[in-house]
Amino acid sequence: MSKTTAGRFFEDYRIGDVINHAVPRTVSGGERAMYHALYPARTALYSSDEFARACGLPQSPVDDLIGFHIVFGKTVPDVSLNAVANLGYAEGRFLCPVYPGDTLRSQSEVIGLKQNSNGKSGVVWVRTQGVNQHGAPVLDYVRWVMVRKRDLEAPAPATVVPELAAVVPAQALIVPEGLDFSTYDTALSGEPHRWGDYAIGEKIDHVDGVTVEEAEHMLATRLWQNTSKVHFDGTQRADGKRLIYGGHVISMARALSFNGLANAQMIAAINAGSHANPCFAGDTIRAWSEVLDRAETQAPGVGALRLRLVATKGGRDVLKGTDGKYHPDVLLDLDYWVFMPL
Amino acid sequence: MSKTTAGRFFEDYRIGDVINHAVPRTVSGGERAMYHALYPARTALYSSDEFARACGLPQSPVDDLIGFHIVFGKTVPDVSLNAVANLGYAEGRFLCPVYPGDTLRSQSEVIGLKQNSNGKSGVVWVRTQGVNQHGAPVLDYVRWVMVRKRDLEAPAPATVVPELAAVVPAQALIVPEGLDFSTYDTALSGEPHRWGDYAIGEKIDHVDGVTVEEAEHMLATRLWQNTSKVHFDGTQRADGKRLIYGGHVISMARALSFNGLANAQMIAAINAGSHANPCFAGDTIRAWSEVLDRAETQAPGVGALRLRLVATKGGRDVLKGTDGKYHPDVLLDLDYWVFMPL
Amino acid sequence: MSKTTAGRFFEDYRIGDVINHAVPRTVSGGERAMYHALYPARTALYSSDEFARACGLPQSPVDDLIGFHIVFGKTVPDVSLNAVANLGYAEGRFLCPVYPGDTLRSQSEVIGLKQNSNGKSGVVWVRTQGVNQHGAPVLDYVRWVMVRKRDLEAPAPATVVPELAAVVPAQALIVPEGLDFSTYDTALSGEPHRWGDYAIGEKIDHVDGVTVEEAEHMLATRLWQNTSKVHFDGTQRADGKRLIYGGHVISMARALSFNGLANAQMIAAINAGSHANPCFAGDTIRAWSEVLDRAETQAPGVGALRLRLVATKGGRDVLKGTDGKYHPDVLLDLDYWVFMPL
Repeated sequence: MSKTTAGRFFEDYRIGDVINHAVPRTVSGGERAMYHALYPARTALYSSDEFARACGLPQSPVDDLIGFHIVFGKTVPDVSLNAVANLGYAEGRFLCPVYPGDTLRSQSEVIGLKQNSNGKSGVVWVRTQGVNQHGAPVLDYVRWVMVRKRDLEAPAPATVVPELAAVVPAQALIVPEGLDFSTYDTALSGEPHRWGDYAIGEKIDHVDGVTVEEAEHMLATRLWQNTSKVHFDGTQRADGKRLIYGGHVISMARALSFNGLANAQMIAAINAGSHANPCFAGDTIRAWSEVLDRAETQAPGVGALRLRLVATKGGRDVLKGTDGKYHPDVLLDLDYWVFMPL
Repeated sequence: MSKTTAGRFFEDYRIGDVINHAVPRTVSGGERAMYHALYPARTALYSSDEFARACGLPQSPVDDLIGFHIVFGKTVPDVSLNAVANLGYAEGRFLCPVYPGDTLRSQSEVIGLKQNSNGKSGVVWVRTQGVNQHGAPVLDYVRWVMVRKRDLEAPAPATVVPELAAVVPAQALIVPEGLDFSTYDTALSGEPHRWGDYAIGEKIDHVDGVTVEEAEHMLATRLWQNTSKVHFDGTQRADGKRLIYGGHVISMARALSFNGLANAQMIAAINAGSHANPCFAGDTIRAWSEVLDRAETQAPGVGALRLRLVATKGGRDVLKGTDGKYHPDVLLDLDYWVFMPL
Repeated sequence: MSKTTAGRFFEDYRIGDVINHAVPRTVSGGERAMYHALYPARTALYSSDEFARACGLPQSPVDDLIGFHIVFGKTVPDVSLNAVANLGYAEGRFLCPVYPGDTLRSQSEVIGLKQNSNGKSGVVWVRTQGVNQHGAPVLDYVRWVMVRKRDLEAPAPATVVPELAAVVPAQALIVPEGLDFSTYDTALSGEPHRWGDYAIGEKIDHVDGVTVEEAEHMLATRLWQNTSKVHFDGTQRADGKRLIYGGHVISMARALSFNGLANAQMIAAINAGSHANPCFAGDTIRAWSEVLDRAETQAPGVGALRLRLVATKGGRDVLKGTDGKYHPDVLLDLDYWVFMPL
């Protein structure tokens, strides 16, 4: 038997390689409805054409994370099919909203390589860009993964570790063209708290919990055409459980954060992210946030807030132990920027 | 930690208060497809643009209950977050079909208040209206819920119990503009039985049963942006089960009633409704109907039928015991009007 | 109680009867998104408007199997409500792509009848055609089912067994108008293997497995308005499991076959199909294919490949024992034609 894709191994990557990922995808109101069914997402800008128009956009875009998941999903067959671990994200920027009718494709450039000292695997850094049908970039981000070697005898490549910004600087955030929060309606958005009401260091417990089911995370992961086997095949583990796609936890935590951050309308950037512990069906996901920074923008009425979003399975306000390691209840530690009305 | 919404308590409501509920919502073919996946819904008017045009409408509307669930879901954070029980519905009327592309918002007026004798809670009556992007009301209904007090020392408000019609009178039903059943095709609709074939007092066993799963009712309840914790958080009960949103049972029972009521095309009004017993995943929902009344309308070929729709978990033709209490198998007892071809 | 449909029994069918099945259905991007959530479907032509335009189509059609499931689902109340077994398919042809906005209806002609020697049931052959809102046929196929008799005393009809082609001949395949694979992009489609790379007799193990859940197959089956009780009612069996709709297995296997057959873009015909063993929630579906035949077409760059697609619950490369019976792990044995770039 033949012809199926074994995926790339560590020795198959070369610095500067550009990979055009397969299967472009047109989105519609269908993906938006599925997103609302999968996550308790309620940000008004992504729910209502009328609200979006009142904010200067032509119509309601699909959730930023729909764009992220689709662009990410396309990279899986080329980047992470033989990955041992998803190690991190950096320099993620949302460059242009995605609207129903848009077609997204995805490409990645290999920007870093470092073989592990055990000689069995190595770290691959890629910068991935999502592009719409007009050729306009909609988002880009750096991700690094640990990838197995096929041939342990293959020589180690020259080590190249890219210099990555710890945080996307506020002045590099791209406000969508036309966005104007100067007549923003907090009655319709769901909460009165504006940019000026958040203080650096402030923490918010988002209160609600959602118990996740096998059917839900598989529906979600397939929707993004993410083909990683571990999410779907219950025969891989004795307990029949499937490892939940980290992006499912990101979307769930982001949606839960509505309660306390209803006006954190748009994701502007992803500075860093860790999937601290695996998530399985039956876990009840909770979330809390911490305000890390604040910045102004050039756009009318639009401020930027830098947030830490932590998803846990049960624990409230947990993060790391005195040893610096994540508490076993922590699922996600995400550092990101949002746009919010002043 | 701060900023999250605790919801309103009994002493926070004042007669005459008008609450503009947050998060307007634009619907598309996506919500319709999800509805067809969640419920065995087959009424032709809500399935086919061609059939709808043959009935005088510009295209196929989304199911009436999609409109109801969206409008209802928006009220939850303001009306029922601290509710002990959902006590009843009255005077529900469907005023205008909802089409893909429409944006719905929701507002409620407090029309009744009555503190309970125990001083710990009280009953709140609200009249809720759903409005589309043209400012046209799409439906309205009265709902009353029992809500906890935050401060047991807060003084009781003056008791106001609204006078509510036991039944929406037939002459108050609003036939959608243009609706014309004079060339209605019963081959395409699925059954030959027309308005004239139903006798008052007639009962119909809808035969089929659907066993419900956790993933399904959570997908449904999120789709309507209903945030009530009890539907999602499995840690609230020792058995990990989540209480199923009553509206999920309404939609399931209404869809099951196709078998015997295929021509009960549009819901015209909700006269009354009781969620008699809680529903949990694993329950197998069945339904039966009783014809309560018949009326003519001014629209060509359009009659109105008043129906009792009873959903049970297993039992057939059960309702109340000799003590007047609902049989433990009864999940829903709904009294409503539909439009049907003469 | 009355008015519900008992369905047709064997003695209710007459040779030449034409049944117009109820409930026409308009499809949208919603059905497409649900399909992508339910199955790991990634063929580029059904994912991207841009890719479809580059192949000469006006936009991306919905998956061929969406059309098949909708057309099939409508026949269930009239053909298989009292069926004991779904015995086979033949002469299935896909005649015209289905696009978002199209409305499908379905009709069947009774073309064969043969009472079983036990006198309790008989085999009914129907030729079913799906038609769009322009009156254009979108697909047709022959199916035969074993149906119970209501009245065992009813006389046996004259036996008519239709002559059916074992395989749709290559020259009878209908290439969609405008389809042109001469500038086909294998980077975007996901694999380099073209029509010329497949040899008759070649087998492909599609590697991946998907464990199926109750919620998923019920969502799918309802989406196609298929009302067969056995898929939904957990009280029919002691173990509470529901029999999974055979079409769910077809779609899952076809989607899994992307890995090795990414360029098998469009289904052109279904020659034969057997649901060899029942599938239940908890089963992990795998798939393998065998190349049965190759043919050229008149369309630019378009070749046809005849494939056997076998779905199993776990076993790899299993099919039949030395006794000619299907291995108990085999769920589906499907013989079909696809269009592929030369």
